[in-house]
Parts: sequence; structure tokens; C-alpha cells
Amino acid sequence: MTIVRDLRDGEEFVGFYLIKESEAKQTNTTPPKDFMNLVLSDASGHVAAKLWDAAPTDKESFQPLTLVKVQGVAQIYREKLQVKIVRIRKTTDADGVRLSDYVRSAPVAPDVLLAGIHRVIESLTDRDIRAVVEYCVNKVGDKLLSAPAAKSHHHAYYAGLLYHISRMLELGDFVCKQRPFLNADLLKAGIILHDIAKPVEMVSELGIVSDYSNQGKLIGHISQASLWIAEAAIKLGLEPESERIMALQHLVLSHHNLGEWGSPVQPQLAEAVALHHIDSLDAKLQMVEDAFGTTADHDEWTAPIRGLENKAFLRLPF
Amino acid sequence: MTIVRDLRDGEEFVGFYLIKESEAKQTNTTPPKDFMNLVLSDASGHVAAKLWDAAPTDKESFQPLTLVKVQGVAQIYREKLQVKIVRIRKTTDADGVRLSDYVRSAPVAPDVLLAGIHRVIESLTDRDIRAVVEYCVNKVGDKLLSAPAAKSHHHAYYAGLLYHISRMLELGDFVCKQRPFLNADLLKAGIILHDIAKPVEMVSELGIVSDYSNQGKLIGHISQASLWIAEAAIKLGLEPESERIMALQHLVLSHHNLGEWGSPVQPQLAEAVALHHIDSLDAKLQMVEDAFGTTADHDEWTAPIRGLENKAFLRLPF
Amino acid sequence: MTIVRDLRDGEEFVGFYLIKESEAKQTNTTPPKDFMNLVLSDASGHVAAKLWDAAPTDKESFQPLTLVKVQGVAQIYREKLQVKIVRIRKTTDADGVRLSDYVRSAPVAPDVLLAGIHRVIESLTDRDIRAVVEYCVNKVGDKLLSAPAAKSHHHAYYAGLLYHISRMLELGDFVCKQRPFLNADLLKAGIILHDIAKPVEMVSELGIVSDYSNQGKLIGHISQASLWIAEAAIKLGLEPESERIMALQHLVLSHHNLGEWGSPVQPQLAEAVALHHIDSLDAKLQMVEDAFGTTADHDEWTAPIRGLENKAFLRLPF
Amino acid sequence: MTIVRDLRDGEEFVGFYLIKESEAKQTNTTPPKDFMNLVLSDASGHVAAKLWDAAPTDKESFQPLTLVKVQGVAQIYREKLQVKIVRIRKTTDADGVRLSDYVRSAPVAPDVLLAGIHRVIESLTDRDIRAVVEYCVNKVGDKLLSAPAAKSHHHAYYAGLLYHISRMLELGDFVCKQRPFLNADLLKAGIILHDIAKPVEMVSELGIVSDYSNQGKLIGHISQASLWIAEAAIKLGLEPESERIMALQHLVLSHHNLGEWGSPVQPQLAEAVALHHIDSLDAKLQMVEDAFGTTADHDEWTAPIRGLENKAFLRLPF
Amino acid sequence: MTIVRDLRDGEEFVGFYLIKESEAKQTNTTPPKDFMNLVLSDASGHVAAKLWDAAPTDKESFQPLTLVKVQGVAQIYREKLQVKIVRIRKTTDADGVRLSDYVRSAPVAPDVLLAGIHRVIESLTDRDIRAVVEYCVNKVGDKLLSAPAAKSHHHAYYAGLLYHISRMLELGDFVCKQRPFLNADLLKAGIILHDIAKPVEMVSELGIVSDYSNQGKLIGHISQASLWIAEAAIKLGLEPESERIMALQHLVLSHHNLGEWGSPVQPQLAEAVALHHIDSLDAKLQMVEDAFGTTADHDEWTAPIRGLENKAFLRLPF
Amino acid sequence: MTIVRDLRDGEEFVGFYLIKESEAKQTNTTPPKDFMNLVLSDASGHVAAKLWDAAPTDKESFQPLTLVKVQGVAQIYREKLQVKIVRIRKTTDADGVRLSDYVRSAPVAPDVLLAGIHRVIESLTDRDIRAVVEYCVNKVGDKLLSAPAAKSHHHAYYAGLLYHISRMLELGDFVCKQRPFLNADLLKAGIILHDIAKPVEMVSELGIVSDYSNQGKLIGHISQASLWIAEAAIKLGLEPESERIMALQHLVLSHHNLGEWGSPVQPQLAEAVALHHIDSLDAKLQMVEDAFGTTADHDEWTAPIRGLENKAFLRLPF
Repeated sequence: MTIVRDLRDGEEFVGFYLIKESEAKQTNTTPPKDFMNLVLSDASGHVAAKLWDAAPTDKESFQPLTLVKVQGVAQIYREKLQVKIVRIRKTTDADGVRLSDYVRSAPVAPDVLLAGIHRVIESLTDRDIRAVVEYCVNKVGDKLLSAPAAKSHHHAYYAGLLYHISRMLELGDFVCKQRPFLNADLLKAGIILHDIAKPVEMVSELGIVSDYSNQGKLIGHISQASLWIAEAAIKLGLEPESERIMALQHLVLSHHNLGEWGSPVQPQLAEAVALHHIDSLDAKLQMVEDAFGTTADHDEWTAPIRGLENKAFLRLPF
Repeated sequence: MTIVRDLRDGEEFVGFYLIKESEAKQTNTTPPKDFMNLVLSDASGHVAAKLWDAAPTDKESFQPLTLVKVQGVAQIYREKLQVKIVRIRKTTDADGVRLSDYVRSAPVAPDVLLAGIHRVIESLTDRDIRAVVEYCVNKVGDKLLSAPAAKSHHHAYYAGLLYHISRMLELGDFVCKQRPFLNADLLKAGIILHDIAKPVEMVSELGIVSDYSNQGKLIGHISQASLWIAEAAIKLGLEPESERIMALQHLVLSHHNLGEWGSPVQPQLAEAVALHHIDSLDAKLQMVEDAFGTTADHDEWTAPIRGLENKAFLRLPF
Repeated sequence: MTIVRDLRDGEEFVGFYLIKESEAKQTNTTPPKDFMNLVLSDASGHVAAKLWDAAPTDKESFQPLTLVKVQGVAQIYREKLQVKIVRIRKTTDADGVRLSDYVRSAPVAPDVLLAGIHRVIESLTDRDIRAVVEYCVNKVGDKLLSAPAAKSHHHAYYAGLLYHISRMLELGDFVCKQRPFLNADLLKAGIILHDIAKPVEMVSELGIVSDYSNQGKLIGHISQASLWIAEAAIKLGLEPESERIMALQHLVLSHHNLGEWGSPVQPQLAEAVALHHIDSLDAKLQMVEDAFGTTADHDEWTAPIRGLENKAFLRLPF
Repeated sequence: MTIVRDLRDGEEFVGFYLIKESEAKQTNTTPPKDFMNLVLSDASGHVAAKLWDAAPTDKESFQPLTLVKVQGVAQIYREKLQVKIVRIRKTTDADGVRLSDYVRSAPVAPDVLLAGIHRVIESLTDRDIRAVVEYCVNKVGDKLLSAPAAKSHHHAYYAGLLYHISRMLELGDFVCKQRPFLNADLLKAGIILHDIAKPVEMVSELGIVSDYSNQGKLIGHISQASLWIAEAAIKLGLEPESERIMALQHLVLSHHNLGEWGSPVQPQLAEAVALHHIDSLDAKLQMVEDAFGTTADHDEWTAPIRGLENKAFLRLPF
Repeated sequence: MTIVRDLRDGEEFVGFYLIKESEAKQTNTTPPKDFMNLVLSDASGHVAAKLWDAAPTDKESFQPLTLVKVQGVAQIYREKLQVKIVRIRKTTDADGVRLSDYVRSAPVAPDVLLAGIHRVIESLTDRDIRAVVEYCVNKVGDKLLSAPAAKSHHHAYYAGLLYHISRMLELGDFVCKQRPFLNADLLKAGIILHDIAKPVEMVSELGIVSDYSNQGKLIGHISQASLWIAEAAIKLGLEPESERIMALQHLVLSHHNLGEWGSPVQPQLAEAVALHHIDSLDAKLQMVEDAFGTTADHDEWTAPIRGLENKAFLRLPF
Repeated sequence: MTIVRDLRDGEEFVGFYLIKESEAKQTNTTPPKDFMNLVLSDASGHVAAKLWDAAPTDKESFQPLTLVKVQGVAQIYREKLQVKIVRIRKTTDADGVRLSDYVRSAPVAPDVLLAGIHRVIESLTDRDIRAVVEYCVNKVGDKLLSAPAAKSHHHAYYAGLLYHISRMLELGDFVCKQRPFLNADLLKAGIILHDIAKPVEMVSELGIVSDYSNQGKLIGHISQASLWIAEAAIKLGLEPESERIMALQHLVLSHHNLGEWGSPVQPQLAEAVALHHIDSLDAKLQMVEDAFGTTADHDEWTAPIRGLENKAFLRLPF
């Protein structure tokens, strides 16, 4: 059993993998023949694969998010590793494999992350702020457990959003201690709420985003989160244009900092400045960390990272 | 009695005017003497004025939005007309002058404009859309009668917002007839709602904006209007994330077209494209029309207009 | 006989179509075989097609703008409909089909549109302006009947330019009535002249642009139109630097509003502001209307529209 | 007799100067007193001056472009030299001073510069190009002798335009020799014509620009020059859309390189690239040379130069 | 004895202050009289002051950075507090006041901050990196104790640079613990070196910057620091183009992230991303904290902060 | 023997060529077959070539920079000439062909160019500047002989950098004579040093760049050259922060003019302005000259040139 990350040129292998992408194609021969381009993945990464001479039913069988058993050969093709599939079938109960084991996900379990976030919520001393945060977190419900933080930009995997929020809360806690003039309740609430509408902005399963939703396109997660805060206020009997509610909405609305990055207003509360920069620091460093994590050990440079001026990153040689 | 527009160099005059701006200053002499810089206005325009040797109580008496009787002399100073005040006093009931007669305002009375808008609302055939529009218009209440459409950008006078909406509705009606594929209910609702939160975004009296409100700075009129639409839906028992509600919010959120102009999402409904361009056409042409209206007849060029690439405009000589 | 718009997956069909694009290719087999990628079109839309095992003469026979009779099978390939050609031949007189019936074109006949424009020209009261407009319209001659308004941006089909001008004249007429301070003669002349050099800027046949002309690349339609106005003035015995001539040139030169959009000067006449915004409103709404028109009924979203921030548009579900 | 450049702190002096700017003002005392702010200049530079206790007629007497005899005292005021005027009067014939001696101008006489340019025109071997250049140069007439190349950007003095053209012709000649693939006739014609409409774009006297003309604002010198080339072609019986005419127009239209710098088309001929860069090189170096020329010898740094990223320049200390 | 922060309208007071700015002016009266505009400061803030009827020697006596004893009256003038000086003299030894007590400075003593930084240097485990950091810190010498981190942007006071580095080191330490894949030695070295050339980029005394140095203008602190790292390598016998030296230079060169912000290369090491964002987070939050610190308690909003999109900040009302 | 430039459609030919690029691919047939995409070049240009049915050893044999003898057929394929290889082998000593004859290179031999540059260096009168320039030129060593000036932007061929420097020196000499206020030593030194670190920024052989080096990515040639100047100063016993050294570094650092183009400081010496514009003029004109040189004689337009606003260029028809 070989995990994706360990595949080497020329290796013949058998293993279980998750189909991440799937495309039916035809050769240019006459008559053309059907074949399939798949992307096989497990928790350690992903690799392109060719299924030649595909049967008519294969297109239906080997859809994205299907768990399969594969016998294949790994080969370097145009400087990248590629799998030539010899045999492939969907897994059965008898195989005893669980989907969740083959999904790329945050390094901490979602329920652990969520429990940590709930502990932070309970620690908030401002009753109104705490109630609004609880309302919004509950509104998202189970989607919060699996949602990625973005389609591909950063934390783009199972429970990526929870992980992003959790690490930001750690940073936020440190910054509040370093700078006591900040309102810790407000900043922590802002951290929890800033991306809370992402799970409805994107259509995802197992942390893999297939598209943006209509709601995501027409409203966007930033405005949607501010609308939920208003809804929470109304449902909780709070004044929707009170100072606390407006402050929470301001943090969410301004957290992308600039209009061209999607924020209709710019930060005008100290906590909004802190939120934007903590978000940025966590997202950007995670991009680099994840890029190294999916780059083969013998590669000096990662692939270019779109969110970092499209620059590749160098593994330190010392 | 001379109106501001008719004042000429060297003219001695008496008249009633509204103080638009007021500033207490001191001369650089030793000892320094108190004087005041005022801006006197009436419905025809405004003019700078000097009150030399001001008494200690004058600072309190001659605040902005005060109606005064002035005896003065108009003089060209640095190529602009300026008034040297000889005598000044606040008006009394005996003077029989009404504040509203001295305020710059839209060319149509606010109640007439509002009645027209209500007729459009009543004509909307979609019950849910109509109800939401009514809710939001009622929420603004009386402020809608006097509010300008902007601080200085365009329609910056008494009932300017109502006038802007009314002209846009005329244009919108024409465009809907020219292009029947557009949903007329949605476009008209969008026209009425797009700036509906402006009266709470800015602090104004008699159409003169003194500042942006905290709500205006932290939330902005675009997001605020979308929040009111959500509130309307909840209070009216409509699903706040239903298609109609999202469509209305989308029109409001996208009507500035680009992120750097304040819109968190870009137009993705045909009616949103129509709304943005009708808004733009009406605002820009009004800027030019108003600039000509406040430029003396003998001047070829208006002052530069900030909202039009800071260009001055030429009066056609034919 | 099936029109392009009605083709369905698996359908075997026979029909007449216009070849819009044509490309000779070879398979990667050894020895390679010739085949052709065609784009078949009619007035309802266009579809990709494969001609396998092409004969040596086919490359010459099946050039763009050729009318052909096709027997084929429609198939979904990579989520898009594609035609596999079984038999194909050029049409003959015996088929009794007319090229013009298979060309995508404006919804109103070009001669009707042109007649309407001539009526507007005759209605202009300013003799000099009318003469210059007539001169320029005559200069373009018959090319005006078929020219599209752009290569692909908007109104990119047979008589698209005439249609664009006509709709703009309707809007312009409304705006002049709404705002009597505008000079209607000048605005209408500007609408007719603003894109009048487009037919020489691009090389097109039947509304399909194959390239920009050298003149289009070196001078551009904006400057070219202003040069024609100068030529008209000289030939008509008018002073080429008189106020009317400069005003007309200004409208043409400034109608793209900004330097980065191709205008060497920015609007400084009220009518120039009106012209730019009427142009923009008509072009953008037409883009959306045309996108819906060529999107299959069962698709919620159009393809992304480059001229509208590359956004796709949603068909209203209500 | 002290020239402006040699004035020192505390010096009492008498001399002839040209009034470059003039402004009537009043003190803040009660009653206010009239005084005048003047800018006195000669060929060596300019200096601010105060005329206290101005007589009512002084405002009329001491207008810009008046030659005056001044007795005054130079004093450092807020780190800049300023003149306190003790006596001032307009010059009379008896003074025997000529205006032209007091005007800042190019370092070579205009008739010498113009003669040089005419020699280049005569050397052009292409008959049509030569005829068009001659036509346009003659069209500008005497204005060409005195016109500056810009309002303040570069070569902003008497005969500045002729000087700019002349130096560019030297550079152009060198570049054509270094790179024989360039068409020397076309490049030299482009150099002579590129700014040829500047004298009608701006209203100037003695090289001092008071404003842009209406023609300059509505059409701009770039489009105006292209219009003159068309006029020349028509009047000379050449085809206005022939290759040579279009090439000349292209050079003029594209010489600002980018749309946001005022060029409606971008360079697409080798000579257009050469023209833009030669123009740029000459203008920018002249800005620095002139800045050093008007900076006192003891100053290390010039004032910031707007056209060079608003940077000040350092006099090399070695 | 009243500190600046506690001055109230109408208060007569006596106290010691530091002159921060000083300007000799004249009244517009005839004859004009000398007066001085001063800015008086102490550790709690600063206030404008007028010295009427200044004696000829006052201009010399009351230069910036002079400690003075002042008797005066505080008055609201145009909505700001201003001091009218009744008596003023330079302090003498007998007054027993120390300059350092009147200077605005970081909240921690410079020697304490520097000692902390040296402890971090000593903790670096990479010998070469540690040696280079020590070399550069020693090169700056005593200037490091007083230097501000910027002219006015952020940390613009005595020891501001040391304070900025120290807080960044705390944050850096936290981030390295949160993300062990980062090379802590390199990040900490980068934090210490990133602004190390600021003390030679600007001319400052007591944390008040009077100008940029020639070196600062021609080279800039970013390139200068990279040059010092090269110098350190050469002097320490290390290879100047070795991996460690290049990595350190890369961190310094890229820490402004983008070319338009002054960085010739963009971050391509994980530690460079961390450095940029830690720098940003610390600088921006300090701007807000300092703005609140110098805003009177009764003001809701701070003045606009240039480095934060020129937005003012709201003091949370809860 | 046919050179690349003379190949025509249908021609059967034999000749020697240099492999510029090489890619091993497989057909989509089952089983897939190996073939190779090569780019064959000689001093006159380059052409794509197909090697069908490649043997397993071919991938190793036909690597980039290999000299081969080819028998083939030239054919138009998709409007471009392509070679179908019939026979191919590596050259042997017996063939008597020299690699250097098949490499695209500057039109003047590198040793001639370098000798010219050394003559300029010897002519510099400032001893320190001359010594620093010599040090840096020697530091690059033999790499300078072959290095291109850029990867593909301009002068992208063997000895391209030497040629660029040489032509710039000619221009610089002319400009210094035209404007004697410029320091000729400094400008010429700046010209020689401005791109001197390019040979270590890129990995190239025979003028063909395969990649940027780590040093090039992390430091960049601009900063690297300034570091070498510092190193030269230290090694030569000059003060590294003296005026001459800083001036040289300033010229190098500022020669891209703007931050977004890679310069950390903007020009603030006259010679820096001259350097930037001479660099620009030479690079841009060379781009056009080279584009014409590699465009077939019968083509009116070159391919688009990325460095010139991505515009294609027209060959003058007269």
C-alpha cells in the first residue's frame, strides 16, 4: 500500500485512493477511443492518472469523491509523476476503508477545533456579543465542520475554515495580551464571524469546492455574514443598529481592508485593523506551509502561489 | 431686495439670507480683533461675507442655518464677489420670511416627488417586492423629504435624493419599455432602494450635510440598505435568503459597480447593470446641469467638477 | 431541418449552415490523418463540428463564410454539444437557400435602421451640423449596412452598428426631452458619428470581423472619425476650427471618457457626458441581452462577459 | 544694477525687471489696506516682491508682462529671498530697455533655431512628407517663434518649443545613423510635427502661458496636429488616407505612448518608438538642467520636479 | 505646573516645555511686526503657541529642541487649543529640568529595550547569522538608542525603532512557536535587521526627524541594510554570496512586500512572508494605539491616519 | 544546405542545426508511441520540428544545445512552417561544423565589444570610479562574453548584454556632448554597471537562458550590482559610503525608474535620469529591430512585442 506522497518513478503499486477530479476524453485516433483523466488523492497529496480504454460505464462509476482501489504504475511524464492505471474498481464495504481517511484535511480533528471555538465563545464576557456569535455559529450548523476556508486560495481542505479560525484565535489572544487597549471580546467575535458565511458562499463536499453558490455570487460571504448578524439581533431582541451590532458588522465588512479586495468599508475600529492583519498573517503563512507540505522533498522550489504575488518559495537549504 | 445671483460689484443692498457656513476668526493685529467669515445663501446661490469687528455674542447668534437680515456692500475681491456686512441681525416673526424659501432645493416640491414615487410603488405587481420597498421607504420616514443625494458630489441640496430617484424612475421606465427582457418590478424597486439609506449615512439639515454619521462611516449606505431589506423580509415573514430578497440586495450591493467604488459584489443580474448605468447617467448629467445653473451667465466655463474627472465644462456658444 | 439552437444530444439531423470558422488539423497517429475543426452557425447561434478523414480538397472547399448542407450527429463532449459530420457539401443554387438567412444579425433590417437614422439627420435644425453628419455617413457608404459595432465586445453581428446607433438615438431623444438644457442637434449628431469610422477600423464580412485594418491599428476609429469631420468641413467650405466643428470632434474624441479607454480628451461639454453614458448604457445592456439570447434555456448562468468585469449573469428565476 | 540671480540677503538695489505675476491684496487690519504681491523676473530667474501701501492705480499699472524699474531691499523671509519694494515705476522709452532682454528664453535665438529646422525640412527626400511638414510649420506661423513647449512641465519659456524640436532633431539624426533600419525622413518629420499644435493649445505671451485655449481643452494638441496633417493632405492634393499621411498621423497620435498619457493609439511603427523615447529623453534631461539652472549655487538640492516623480535632484558634489 | 495634555480653555499656567517646531513670522500690518509660531511639547503631547511682539533675538533663542519655561494662557481658537505666551525664557541649570523628561518616547526605556534585543541576538544558534546581526547592530551604534522608526508614519518618537523591533520580536517568537517549520534564527535576525539602517536614512535628534539624509534619499534604508550585511560578511570572512547571507539580504530587501512600496524583490522565503506581516501588524496597530493616546478623551474620533487609508478611528463606546 | 530563414513550404532539405528546445512526448494512441518536439535553430532564426517514432535513446541524444545534422521536409502546418524530420544525428568532428556558427548572437563579435568597453573604462578620468568599474567587470569574468541582456525581453542572445552596453555607451557619449552639465565619467560607469549582475541573475549557455538563478530570484541583478560596488569599495580600500560609491549605487538602483519596475529608489541625480532613458531607448528600439529581423520578408506585421505594450509592428510600405 503506497500513499501518494511516496510514489516513485517506475513503481508498480496497489492502493486505495479518493477520486478528486474526473474527466472523460477521447483519443484523436479514428475511430477515437475513450479514456479518462483522473486525479487520485489521499491525505498526503494528489497525482494525475490515465485510465486508457475506458468502458462506457466507467464515466459514471469514477466520479469525483469516489473511493477506489487502484493497481497502477507511476511514471515520470513531462517532468511530473503520472499514474498509468492497470486495474481500478470502486471500494466495497469488505475493503474496510473509510472515506474520511483519504481526504486532505486540517491537522486537527474538526470536533476538537469546534470545541475549542465554543470554549472561546463561552469565555466572552459581553452577553450580547456572545449571543450573536452563538446564533451565527449555530446557523451554519454542521457545514462548519467540513468547510474549507477558500476554494483554492488558502486552507482549501476539509475543516480548513475551523483550523483558520482556531489559529487566528490563538494569535488574537496573544495580540490582545500584548495590547490591552484592544477589546478582546470584540476581536475574538470578529475572528469567529469574519468568514462564517463561507460555507454557504461555496458548494463543497469533504472540503473540496465544486463551485460558488448563487448566494455566494450575488451577495458574497462578507455581506451575508453582516446580514446574519442583523438577523441574530432581530431574533434575539437586540436593537439591529445598536453600537455592538454595528461594531460586529463593521469588523466583518471591513476585514478585506480595501474595496478592490471586497470590503465595502475600510477599518475604522482598532479591532478591525487587528482582525485584518491577523487574518492576513495566518492565511499567507498557511499558504507557504501547505505549499512546502505538498512539494516533493527533493524540490528546492514550490509551485508559484497565486495569493503571494504568484511567487514560488525556496526551501531553506540550511 | 437682491437675491444672491443678482449681486453686482459695488452694489449696496439689503436682504434676507440663510447662513450656510460660519467661522469666528481673529486679525493678526496686536491686539487681535474678532471678525467672522460667513457664507450667505438663498435659493439662487451663495456668497462669502465678512463681518468685521464682531461682538462677543455674534459667534453664538450667527450660526449655520440661521436666517438673517443683512445690509451690505458687494465688492470684487481677488476676482470673486464678496460681501462686506454693514449691519446684520437675526430675522424675527415680524419679518414674515420662511426658512424654506431661502434653501437651495430640487426644482420639484418634495411631497410631489414622494407622491410620484409612491405611485410607482403601488404599480409594482410583485407583492413581496412591493412590500419590501414600502417597508424600507417607511423606515426612513420624514428624513426622505429633505435628504440630499450626496454631501457635495451630486444632487447636494434639499430633496435632492427624492429628485434623483424620480428622474431615475423616468429613465428606468423608458429603458424597460425599450428592453422588455428586463424585470421592470425589480429594476424600479432597485432604483427606489439603491440610496435609501443615505439619509442615515449623513447628518443633514435642510439638505446641507454637516458630516457623515457613525453608522455611515462604519456600515455605509450600501450595506445599510441591504440590512434593511433583510429586516423587512424578517418582519414581513418572508424568507430572508429567498430569490427575490437576494435579488433586491444584489441590486443595492452592486450598484456602485466596482469594489474600489464601494460595491462588495459586481452586477450579475441584467437589472443590476441597468441600475448602475441609469444611476450614473442621471448623477453625471445633473452635475453638469447644476454647475451651469450656479455659474454666472458671463462665464464661459464652470468650475471643475470633481465627479467628472475634475474637468470644467464649456457653455456651448451656439 | 434543425436550427443550431434546437440541436440535442444524440440527435441525427440534416440542415443548411454557414461556416463561421475553419481549421485544418492532423491527428497524432502515425501516419497522421487530416481532419477539420469547423464552427457551424445560423441565425440562432453556433456549434463546433468535427470533419474526420478530410479529403485534400476539403480544406479549400470549406472556408469561413461558406454555406453548406450537413448531415451529422450531435453529441455532448466535455459538457458541450459538438457535431460529428457524416456528410457535408457546399450548397448549390438548386438548394434555394440565401446566405443572409444564415447570418446572425440585428433584430431589425439594416435598411429600416438606416432610413430611421436618415430621418433623424433630416430633423437636425443646425444646417452645418446636418451637412457634416450627412457627409460622414455618405463617406462610409454601403459598409454601414453590414458593419458590426465591435469585433466581439458588443453588437458583434450583421448591422450591429446601425442597431446600436438607432437604439442610442431613441435614448438620446428621451434624455434631451428630460433635460432641455442639452443641445439635441449636437447630441444626436454625436450619437451618429461616434462610431462612424468603425467600418474602416475593422475588416468584416457579413458582420463577422476577421481582423483590424492597418488604418484601424495606426489611427483608430476615434481619431479617424474626427479626421473625417475635418475633411467634411473643408470640403463643405466650413471653417475646420469653428465652434461647431470642434464641438462635434470633441464629442467623438471624448466618447470613451478616459485616456486608458482610448479617448485623447475627456468630456467637457454636457452633450459629451450624455453621449458617453448613453453609449455605455446601450452597449452594456445589449451584451447581457445577447448573452441570454445565446445561452440555452436550461442554463441558469450565461458565459462570463468580458465587457462586464468578466462576470457571468444569472437568469432571474422569478 | 543687480540681476535676480545675484540678489543677496540685506542688499539694497535698483534695477529693471519684468512683472511675471501680479496680485492685489488687502491686509487683515481694520480698515484693511491695499498691497500687492508681485513676481519680478529677468532672464536669470524670478523672485517674490511686496509692494506695501499700494495706490489705487497701482493695480492697473503693474500687470503681468510689464517692464518696471524697482528700488528695493532683498530679505530672507521664511527661508526664501523676498523683495520689499521701496519705489517702483513703469519703464519709459528714455530707459532704453528692451522687453526681450528680460524674458527667460531658450539659450539659442529663435530665428537661428527656426532656420536650422527649415534646413532639416529641406533635407527631407520624400516630397510628400516634406510638403506636409512645410504646410504645418507655415500654418503655425509666427507663434512658433515664441511658444514654450509646455505650461510648466518642461521647456516652459520663450522659444522653448523650437529649442526642444532642435535638440530632438540632433538626437534623431544620431539615432538614425546608429540604426539605419529607421526611416530618417519619417522620424524627422515626426519630431517637427509632434508638438506643432502646442502654440494653439495654450495662450501664451513671451513664452509665459496664461491658460489653455478652448481648442486646447476640447481637441488637444495631439489630435489638432493630426487634423492639420489631414488638412495639409487635402490642400496639397494628397490622399488623406494614404500610407505616408497615416504614418505621419500615427507618429503624432502615439507619441505620448499610453492612453493615460493622452495618446489614443500606441506606437506600432519603429519610428514612433524612436520618437517617443527621444521626446522623453530630451524633455526629462532639460527639466533637470533647468532645475539646476534656477537653483542657487549654494543649494545642494533642487526643488522637487513634478515631471520626474516629484523628486528633487542632488547637485553632484564631485 | 501643567502638562500639555491637561491644558484647558482659559487656563493661565506656568511650566517647562520643549520647543518642537519654531517659525518666525511677520504680521500684515504696516509696518509689519515680528511674532513667532512655536509648537510646545512634553512627554504627554504638543500644542501650538503664539509669541507676539517677538524681540530680534528671540528667533535665535527659541529654536527647535530648546527647553523653555513658559507663562501663558490656553485658549480655544478655531476649535483647537492654542497657547498665548505671556513670558518665555530658556531654562537654566538652576531649573533642574532634564531634556529627556520632556521628550515623547517609547513606553519602555531604550537601554532596557536594547538589552532585550541583545538577549535575543545571543540566543541565536546559527553562528554566522548571529555574527552578522551583531556587526550591523554595532555599526549603527548609539543612534539606535534614540532613533524613531519613521518620520511620522509610525513609532515616530524617541526610541520608537527599538520599541518596534522589540514588540516584533515578541510576535515573531509566538509565530515561530505556532509554526515550527519557520527558521526562528532567520526570522528573528530579519526582524532586528529589517529597519536597522533607518537611523542613517533620516536626520533626527531626540526622536524628532528633521529631514532625510542624502544617503537615505539616494540609497534608502532597505538597500543600505543589505549593503551592511555584505560588508559584515566580508569583514567577518564569510562568503558574501553564501546562502545565509543571501537569505538575510532577501528578508531585508523584500520586507516592504511590493515594488511600489520600495522592495526590489518580493518575498520568496517563508520567513520573509512572516517578517512582512509581523512588521505590518505591529506598525498599524501602533498607529491606532498612538492616535488614541494623543486624542483628547472627549473626542469620539481620532484624526485621520495616513498609513491606514487616511481613515479616522472611532473610540469604542462600550 | 538551407538556413532556417530560407526554408519554404514543401522543401526537402539537409543541413546542420542547433537544438534550442527539446521535449519528449507520447501520442494518444494505444499503446502510445514516443515522439519528440524539437526547436531547430541557426544564426538566422528557429523553427519547430517533429521527430516521429523516436527511439528510446533519442531523448538523451537530442538535448538542448546539441548540434545535429537533419534531413527533413518543411511544411506549412496551422499557418506556421514546421519541419518533419526524416533523419537526424549528432554532428561529429568529421562534419567540421562549429557550434558558434549556429548560435544567434549580437552582430558584433564579443571580444570586439568587450575591447571597446575596456577602452571606455580606461578613458574614465576619475580614478575611484574607474577602479570600481574594473573590479565589477572583472568579477563577472568570462560570463560577460556570452550573456544575453534578458531572458526574452530584449537583446536575448549570445553577447546581447555586451552589445546593449556598447550601443548605450555610444548614445551616452553623444548625450554628454550635447549636455555638458552631465558628469560623463559617472554616466558611462553607470551604463557599464547597470546590468553587470545579469550574468549571475540568469542561468544561460550560448546566450540561451534556461532559468533564473536562486541569487537572481532572491536578490535580483539590481541589488546584486549595488552589493558588488560595495564589495569593490571595501576591497579597494575606498569608503563604502562615500559620495562616489553612493552615486554609482544610486545609478544602478534607480535605473528601472519606478518601484513597480524593480527600482527601490527613483532617479535623483541627472545622470540617473540619463541612464534610465538611454537604457530604455536602446532596449525598445532593439526589440523592434530584432522583431523585423526575425519576421519573414513577406509579412507586413511582426508578432506582438511584450515589452512594447504587446503591440505588433508594421513594416513601412514606403
